[in-house]
This record gives sequence, C-alpha cells and structure tokens, in this order.
Amino acid sequence: MTKPRPLSGFPEWRPAHQTAEQAVTDGLRRVFELHGFAPLRTRAVEPLDVLLGKGETDKEIYLLRRLQAEADAADADSTLGLHFDLTVPLARYVLENSGHLTFPYRRYQIQPVWRGERPQEGRYREFVQADIDIVGDGVLAFHHEVEVALVAAEALSALPIPPIRLRVNNRKVAEGFYTGLGLPDTAAVLRVMDKVDKIGADGVTGLLTDLGATDDQAQACLRFAAITGTPGEGFGAVGAAVKSLGVTDPLLDQGLDELARVVDAAQRDVPGVLVPDLSIARGLDYYTGTVYETHLVGHEGLGSICSGGRYDELARDGSRVFPGVGISVGVTRLIGALLGRSLVASTRAVPSAVLVAVTDEGHRDVSQRVAAALRRRGISTEVSPTAAKFGKQIRYADRRGIPFVWFPGDDDAAGEVKDIRSGDQVPAVASTWTPPAVDLAPTLVGPDSTEEPEELS
Amino acid sequence: MTKPRPLSGFPEWRPAHQTAEQAVTDGLRRVFELHGFAPLRTRAVEPLDVLLGKGETDKEIYLLRRLQAEADAADADSTLGLHFDLTVPLARYVLENSGHLTFPYRRYQIQPVWRGERPQEGRYREFVQADIDIVGDGVLAFHHEVEVALVAAEALSALPIPPIRLRVNNRKVAEGFYTGLGLPDTAAVLRVMDKVDKIGADGVTGLLTDLGATDDQAQACLRFAAITGTPGEGFGAVGAAVKSLGVTDPLLDQGLDELARVVDAAQRDVPGVLVPDLSIARGLDYYTGTVYETHLVGHEGLGSICSGGRYDELARDGSRVFPGVGISVGVTRLIGALLGRSLVASTRAVPSAVLVAVTDEGHRDVSQRVAAALRRRGISTEVSPTAAKFGKQIRYADRRGIPFVWFPGDDDAAGEVKDIRSGDQVPAVASTWTPPAVDLAPTLVGPDSTEEPEELS
Repeated sequence: MTKPRPLSGFPEWRPAHQTAEQAVTDGLRRVFELHGFAPLRTRAVEPLDVLLGKGETDKEIYLLRRLQAEADAADADSTLGLHFDLTVPLARYVLENSGHLTFPYRRYQIQPVWRGERPQEGRYREFVQADIDIVGDGVLAFHHEVEVALVAAEALSALPIPPIRLRVNNRKVAEGFYTGLGLPDTAAVLRVMDKVDKIGADGVTGLLTDLGATDDQAQACLRFAAITGTPGEGFGAVGAAVKSLGVTDPLLDQGLDELARVVDAAQRDVPGVLVPDLSIARGLDYYTGTVYETHLVGHEGLGSICSGGRYDELARDGSRVFPGVGISVGVTRLIGALLGRSLVASTRAVPSAVLVAVTDEGHRDVSQRVAAALRRRGISTEVSPTAAKFGKQIRYADRRGIPFVWFPGDDDAAGEVKDIRSGDQVPAVASTWTPPAVDLAPTLVGPDSTEEPEELS
Repeated sequence: MTKPRPLSGFPEWRPAHQTAEQAVTDGLRRVFELHGFAPLRTRAVEPLDVLLGKGETDKEIYLLRRLQAEADAADADSTLGLHFDLTVPLARYVLENSGHLTFPYRRYQIQPVWRGERPQEGRYREFVQADIDIVGDGVLAFHHEVEVALVAAEALSALPIPPIRLRVNNRKVAEGFYTGLGLPDTAAVLRVMDKVDKIGADGVTGLLTDLGATDDQAQACLRFAAITGTPGEGFGAVGAAVKSLGVTDPLLDQGLDELARVVDAAQRDVPGVLVPDLSIARGLDYYTGTVYETHLVGHEGLGSICSGGRYDELARDGSRVFPGVGISVGVTRLIGALLGRSLVASTRAVPSAVLVAVTDEGHRDVSQRVAAALRRRGISTEVSPTAAKFGKQIRYADRRGIPFVWFPGDDDAAGEVKDIRSGDQVPAVASTWTPPAVDLAPTLVGPDSTEEPEELS
C-alpha cells in the first residue's frame, strides 16, 4: 500500500485526539443517562423512501450499491441509503417498535451520519452526532421542551470547553406575532426573515412588501426579529420589548409564556447559559414549538454545535401520532474545532496508568502477575513489550504518556513504583497500591490545563 | 410513513436489548482498557483500492454513490466503499499516522462493518465488531500472541454468557509438519485439509494424492489434523501426539513451542478456557503464527464468535513493515444468539434507578430539585412525565423497570422512597439516600438471574 492520504470530508483523529473524542462522548453519555435517557443504536441504512419521507431532498444522500450486484440482479434490494441524521431513523424505529416502547420514550443515540456535501470548514461528509429525544404517544407535555434544553446545557457545561450560549426561540411566538400583525402567511414571512443576514433590512422589506406587507408591518417584523435577551437575565425585558410593538394574539401569548418558562428554568439551573433570541428563524418552518441553537462563546463563526426543537409530528402511523422534542450535539464539528484550535486535550493518549517493567524475558511472568493484581483493582496497566534497560523502558512509558513505571521485586507482591514526571520512587505492593485518582484514567482538560500542547499541533 | 418492516441482514434490537448490547460492548471495552488498549474510531469508508488491497474480492463490498451525483460529475471522488472489517482500516490508519504512533501500537476498535452478503442465521449485512490489535514497527515479539488470546479470554469470560472455548493453532506447526513430512507445497495442503469437514477423509486423501502425496503421507496428514487438546490440561499430550507421528522439522519445533507457551499461559490465567486444536485450518493460509477461534460451549453451531491471529505483514510502506496480532469479537453475532435464545438480559431497559413522582404540576419544580440532588451523586433519575395519581405513576415506573419511586415532601430535602418490587417505603433525604449498588445501573445477567424472561421473547 502506498502512503494513504486523508479523505476530504471524512475526518479521523490521531491517537491523542481519539481519546479526547471518546472522553467527550463519554461525558455527554453520562449526563444523558443520569437523566434517564436509554441507549439506542439504529442500523446505518434506511430505505431511500424513508430517507426522502419528509421531502428533504436537499440533503445529499449516499446510496449503497453492491460491488458484485450485476452478477445477481434478482437479489436487488429496495434502494438503501446511509442515514443523514439520527431523527429519521428514530421516527422509523418508534413506528416499527411502538408496541415495545414505554411512552414518553427517552433515548440518546451517538452515531455517525453521512452527507455527500461539498466539504468545507465545519462541514463533513461523515460526522458523529449525539442526540437526545423524548417522544410521546399522541401527546407530549410542554415541560419536556424545558427539560431537553436543560439536559443539553448541563451535558455541554460539564465538559472542559469554552462557555456555551444556548439560544432559544419558539415557533408560536413568531407565528402568533405575524398573524396578530395581519400577515397570515406566516410560513412565507418566516422564510423571508431567515434571509435578513444575507440580504439585509432593505432586501427583507422588499420581499415582505411583495407578500402584501405595509411599510409599518415590515418595520415591525424587523424590530421583532431583532429582539434578543441578555445572558444571565430573566425573560422580562424580552417580553416587554415584544409587547411594546403593540401586537396581540393568543398564540403569541402562549409562545411568550412557553419561552419564559424555558428561560426562567435555565436561569435557575444553568445561569447565564441560555438566552431568548427572536432572531432565530432557521428551523422555525418545520419545528412547531421551542427551537434551540448553541454556540461556543468566542467561536460563533463555527456555527451551531447543538440544535433541535419540538415537532408535533415526529412520526405518524395512520391516526396515531408521535410528537417529539430533541436536540442534537454535533460532536465532530465541536471536537474538530476544539482540537484544531488546541482548546481541549486528553491528559494522555492511552488508558494505561502503569507500565510494569520487565527485568529480563525469563521473569516476564513476574511482571504479568503484578499487572494482573493492579488490573483486578481497576488500574489500567501494560507490561513492557521488551526487557530493555530500565532507562529505555521508562522512555517508552514517557512517550506513551504513562505516568507510573513499576519495577517488580524478586517476589511479585512487592516492588517499587516511580512517578516518572517527578522522579519519586517508593516501595509498593501490587495488591494495595493505587495511583492518585487524577491519574487513574485519561481525562479531558481545557487549554489552561493542557500540559502537552505539541500533541495538538 | 406506513409501518416499517425490518431489513433482512440489518439487525436492530428493541429497547431492552439495546441496553444489553451496550453492556456487552462496555464490558469488553473495560477489559481492553485495563490492558492498555487505546480507543480508535476510523471513518466508515475506504477507497475501493484499499478495500481490494489484499485481493479479498470474495468480500461483498458496499460502494457509495451520491443520490445527486449525476448533476456534478466533475466532483466524482475516487470510488468509496464501506469497510468490511476493522483490520483493513487499521492497516491504513497505521500507515497514514505512523509518525504519530508509539510502537507497539495497541488499540481497540468497536464499530459496525458492512458486507453485502446474502443474510442467513448468524450472517449479517451490518454487524458490530470489537477488535484488539497490537502492531509493531519492523518486529513484534511473540509474547503478544499469548497476550491477545488472554485478553480476549478475560474479556469474554467477564460477561455473564455461556462458557467459551478458545481454540488455538499455529501456522508454523502445520507448515513445519507438512514440510517435514515431505510435502513442500504447504499452502496447497492447507487448502485441502480445510475441506475435511465437507468432503471427508476419503475426499481429502484423493486431493492429497493429486498433490503427489503417498498413502502414508495422506494418512499422517489426517492423523495430524485430528489432534486436539483437552480443556483444563496443558500442552503435553498434544505435543506427544504430534511427536508420535515421527515427523521432525525445525519450524515444527518452533511452532509447537509457541503453541505450548500460549496454552500454558492460558492454563495459568484462565484455566479451562483455551485448547490447542490442530484441526483448525481456516485462516492458516493468511495468518503467519498463532490463530484463534472461539465458540460458545453448547452453541458451537453458531460458529466462531471471536477469531484472529498473527500477521507478519499487517501493513507495509516501502521497506518498512508492520507486523500485527489481533482478535475480533463478533458482537452482533454473539448478542443476536444470546438474546434470541434468552441466554442473557439487561436487569432493566433504562438507566434510571429512581422515578421522582410529581404531586401536582404546580410542584414539578420540587420534584426536579430532588432529581437534581440525586443526579449530583451519580444516581440516574427521571421526573414523572405527569402528575397523575401516584398509583399510575408507580405503574409507569414499573413498566419502565425503574426500581424506586420517590415521593417528595413539602420541603425538597425530605420525602419518602418506595422500592416498588418489595413495596417497602422509607423516609429519605435526597442529598444522602443511595440505592443498593446492584440497583444503581442496569447490568447484564445470565439466564439464571433473568427476572423478566418475557422481555426476551
């Protein structure tokens, strides 16, 4: 094989970064499980008609074809494609297994998804998502829309990454406002408002006029869509700003009440993380209640690393409807940015806390018994691959980032253990010695604690 | 969406089984990490020429094609296919990242692989493998061939599954024996001997005669390939049986010595699990040293659930060669068989140990504070989705398999907690109460401990 080269759009981390990615997904998983979300792994493929079920043909789908398919065309399956998100498989799984599920069904799912898009920074053809969703049977209480935002904020805040800002809006606020303003085609208005960053206020005003809006109405839309809250404050100022525009509508009131409940709960549980932001238009056309977007503070150009919202109809089976609310962490986008900017690192690349030295090949079994005794108490341990001079074995541990080297005595119960960072060496017994908790396993650390920046270049 | 149906060859577990699959992969991962194997996740796709690099065109590869590829043919990538194992991606990763790796490189990898084969029992088109490999730079000491067998045996033996039998052979034994016997085209002899189960002794004798073997030589081959050890015994009887055939060869002696070292080490560390078995021919044509196959005792018809061996040339970059030894657990085959036969189950489908009841919607925040206090100490907790009558909330917990229901008091610090299995209810404080360790998280249990067999139907 000639030296292989990376495939554009299919990121793959080197060893130290592999451990960091796993620490991130383990950290997310831990918080998801603390909140009672159960694991789900779906197959990577779906029939093409399922993938196209929601009419999202703008997604670049990868279809499968068997290399030797020509030979036995009679075997031709219905066309299969790789899933482009974890929501379509969830909807299909819920329909297929509804008889085995207890509703509201709470699941998390951490898997790669594939999109045949043109690669660019932050856009990948294969990337890992970590999703949580809560799916009801017929009904789904509003408080789950609050819950999902809090779990996502808690999970991301538990990682040693830059602070996050979770921006929240509600479809009912926008729909109620535009209706109350006298613009009943709210879907069309939302599509126009979504373009304000691209075409500016004048462009938006022109398009709104085409939809039949007066100048006053267009100005009200622009003022409305510029309302954002302040991190660390409650919903009061935002509610007042909306009311000052003089529009009244029952759906608007309901939406403002829901938004206030999300903001106030977050202010209590994860203060400073969540802000109401009426400028969010993306997603409002297919979500039906709360919508979420999340940015890393100071790295907003990266785009949203965690988005989602409420669907009144995640799935439907005849007259039976399954509403859902969920949020999806873009793990690969998040990790790619953090690793690329040296903002996060793993304390070491390998799980091993201890390398047991080998005195000579004839005594490898003594070292193996020491290692077994340490492992029985949960201490990740390797035995030196060679019986080279101790200095060389220590350098091997150092290159791998293993903090401790164990030198066995004549008897496998006793020996000495050296912390190769400090050089301290003490007598130790394999059945009782334990490394400091911080050294037991590799952990994820932020930029201030990154001891080995050269690993991240 | 109409009710979706399962896709043949793409197994997917229902909720209780999802948790069991995760417990199996978590258990394997834990042992792999205790032995210092670091995580690796490679992309799912490889260029077709990499997938065909070893000439294994018998594997049914899935190629990718973008749904909208016609529109911009200029973008045509080199053809990409889904990986059919985790060894080809490992070899490619090692070549691509050799400058960032410390050798011997030890990694584990737990990912799905895809093969477009005709589905049948125990054969899937998408299945999860859990691999460990140790890869050297230029050289790789023999003791790693012992190590890989022991780690696999330890990892599988730690699961509450039927006992395993790890059968081991060595390419050098076979090659040395056939050479010493006067049949130098050992590759051809191995291909013939691999057919003995299908065509019987007479058929094999005929084919060996075609290769120029005398009747005596053919009989010696058949006697040799029938030698197997006895679980729980050392290598002595097997070595004696080979020697009794009167063939001498230096490679045979080396192979027997290596095989004895694997068997004796296993007899010491995992007694009764590993047996030498000279009848194993599969894989001997591409592995170069020790080979492994593993069966569930009493379920041999399932085939091998864990196989591997030593490659002298896992990868090559010009004159630089990377030898490797590895073993691969067929997670989906193992789980599919165990779940299908009700031989294993998860104690519950959800991570939640506690459901906090809600007295009325106006007091949901009290229940949420109780849940937060429990979660802070690592206790997975849900808040009841409704403020229905307590009897209904208890039935909800029961359906989900949640063992404890918490009834909040007026004050969020105190309340009562009921074990809904025994009915015992006691006063409790959320900042200090802890469930018994066995109830903290779902665990995998064997058939004797399976409390809810109906979950497995």
